[in-house]
Amino acid sequence: MSALEEKRTGGVTLYDGKILKLCVDDVTLPDGSPAKREIVRHNGGAAVLLVENGEILLVRQYRYAYLEETLEIPAGKLERGEDPLVAAARELREETGYSAKLYPALDIYPSPGYTDEIIHIYFAAEPQRGEQKLDKGEFLNVVRIPLGEAVKMISDGKIKDSKTVAAILKYVADNGIKF
Amino acid sequence: MSALEEKRTGGVTLYDGKILKLCVDDVTLPDGSPAKREIVRHNGGAAVLLVENGEILLVRQYRYAYLEETLEIPAGKLERGEDPLVAAARELREETGYSAKLYPALDIYPSPGYTDEIIHIYFAAEPQRGEQKLDKGEFLNVVRIPLGEAVKMISDGKIKDSKTVAAILKYVADNGIKF
Repeated sequence: MSALEEKRTGGVTLYDGKILKLCVDDVTLPDGSPAKREIVRHNGGAAVLLVENGEILLVRQYRYAYLEETLEIPAGKLERGEDPLVAAARELREETGYSAKLYPALDIYPSPGYTDEIIHIYFAAEPQRGEQKLDKGEFLNVVRIPLGEAVKMISDGKIKDSKTVAAILKYVADNGIKF
Repeated sequence: MSALEEKRTGGVTLYDGKILKLCVDDVTLPDGSPAKREIVRHNGGAAVLLVENGEILLVRQYRYAYLEETLEIPAGKLERGEDPLVAAARELREETGYSAKLYPALDIYPSPGYTDEIIHIYFAAEPQRGEQKLDKGEFLNVVRIPLGEAVKMISDGKIKDSKTVAAILKYVADNGIKF
């Protein structure tokens, strides 16, 4: 046990929904005192950065939590226990029509204070264009943005989604690109 | 109303806790069909990237959601309606003892599918060392990591926190640093 570890002593699941569960657990802190932990349980997500001819593929969609449209790389939730690579390929195909070779780029923890979600980000190579096939109830537009403009849109606050920011800046860092 | 907008028709707050609320809202989709939206409501967070002599300041803490220790830039939750700059300065001071001039770097949406949290990230300049003053029930260690090593730790999956990944890679991009 690490000196910082918190040990579970009990807890309840307050909600078990379609995309998340909410659990409130009782824990013992490193000094022995009790505390509550409010935790969102989530199957995780998979996302793909596809760069083609210097442009990246983004999807514009309405995000009800913010009451606004966002620009994000193609992504979706994992089925329980699903291989994130399989989910990434599926979401890319459904949302944009593209298939591609996918390489693991990085995993991120979106907000570790209260969610256990892991977002698995892939970089795409050798893209092949196909037909978009959205899920029922899914509404989005695919847009193509030059990489340098996307980097500027991060600075300007026009791209805010954490997986999209991480993917674009990681790609720029990996490829030693300077704008 | 944009072509992608979802319109609220009702909803309930299922939990109102210490760090988050859980709401399940009824919405109407762009094609007129009904859907549910499971949304975590959160006051938002503020975080600071401080680079001193080529090293960045990170805090190592236990994250119960993942049952592991993480490395993250100093950060904390906003009080309701609080100026994120004030929160960022407070969290930097409490967690690390440092005060500094803070400049807005970027805001991120950690997981826009289900949370309305906004994380406001600042870059620090002219750091002044002081005394760490942790909140009751807060346990963490401050570590200093050379910037290039931190970038490598993102590639190696040793730094996964989204705000930390975004802050470090944005700093590297802004300063045209190549590793």
